[in-house]
Amino acid sequence: MRLAELSERSGVSTATIKYYLREGLLAPGRQVNTTTAEYDEDHLRRLRLVRALIQVGRVPVATAREVLAHVDDESLGRTIRLGAALWALPQVPEPDGSDEEVRAAHHEVDQVMERLGWSNARSLSSISPAHRSLVAAVATLRRLGYAWDAELMLPYARLMHRAAVHDLDFVETRSSEAEKVETAVAAAILFEPALRALHRLAQEEESARRYGFE
Amino acid sequence: MRLAELSERSGVSTATIKYYLREGLLAPGRQVNTTTAEYDEDHLRRLRLVRALIQVGRVPVATAREVLAHVDDESLGRTIRLGAALWALPQVPEPDGSDEEVRAAHHEVDQVMERLGWSNARSLSSISPAHRSLVAAVATLRRLGYAWDAELMLPYARLMHRAAVHDLDFVETRSSEAEKVETAVAAAILFEPALRALHRLAQEEESARRYGFE
Repeated sequence: MRLAELSERSGVSTATIKYYLREGLLAPGRQVNTTTAEYDEDHLRRLRLVRALIQVGRVPVATAREVLAHVDDESLGRTIRLGAALWALPQVPEPDGSDEEVRAAHHEVDQVMERLGWSNARSLSSISPAHRSLVAAVATLRRLGYAWDAELMLPYARLMHRAAVHDLDFVETRSSEAEKVETAVAAAILFEPALRALHRLAQEEESARRYGFE
Repeated sequence: MRLAELSERSGVSTATIKYYLREGLLAPGRQVNTTTAEYDEDHLRRLRLVRALIQVGRVPVATAREVLAHVDDESLGRTIRLGAALWALPQVPEPDGSDEEVRAAHHEVDQVMERLGWSNARSLSSISPAHRSLVAAVATLRRLGYAWDAELMLPYARLMHRAAVHDLDFVETRSSEAEKVETAVAAAILFEPALRALHRLAQEEESARRYGFE
């Protein structure tokens, strides 16, 4: 397809597409003559991911380029490729290990991983931004007087593991390897707002069931 | 306790506590003489919630005051009191009802609520910010080419309902009615980052289980 059709089908303006091409976020089309290039379904799919990163995830262009470089790196296995892509996203800073609540949070998170047999997550924990985010979030809760310990986290961790199983099952319905990794990155950015809203809606439903409307 | 002890126990500086007192976010202490006021456990608890709203939730002071007014309104039933407090938080704007993807998202969200028997959430849907956020999030996903339909949402909605049951069970462990409502508001703001991090950690675990580290 031509640039105009790529714009039409993606809902992204031709000016923005040209900007993404210049910034290297989108591979050049196949040049059919000096003024015209031809684009395909891969371009359309990549354009979606770029929009997800930049417009929804508010990821800076340089970061998006880094994420996409990992997505495209076929020399990596899927876990590492996906991990590298997600880990290139902006992350929380390392929590202060000398802080008492951070140490307590670290211990409780370790307990959760141990009790659920998350041996892979445990072996990644020193480098994983997800682990770091969790320790930081739990330390904040504890500092504010909410005693989030392993006992309290366990049922949520079990539910989130089941959500992760659904996530990866969905990713596996995609046909090509490139599409799988792209979908996983898009999911990490785009599914969160929907899950958060579903959670709030479920809280409303459950609250009304228990306490009615009076 | 005196102001200095309240500051010590809450980790909030005396200057900040005085600011919260001036802004009406914290009730005045019991005046023991012209220069000294006495504070109690209720002040300490409220101070935690104010910090959760302002420091973690980044809620403006005027909004925090509105949220707290609903928390304190004993004339309301718990569902409405909690709803009013949460609904006072900054929310997404109403999605454009003439947009095709918004209408499609609305239909799919209705399907989810119907199939799960969420009759309370359905009857609140025209005024609920959670419903509006979900429609907006699903419309964004659809616009970016990710076909989030009822079928795809159902397993997540079921998991989030189970999370909501845990949330409310936790809220019910608090002793007083005021504490219950405060905990529910704090949970809505503070638990999300921890849940999101747990979800990412579970994705890492599951991904490594399926694809290893190569």
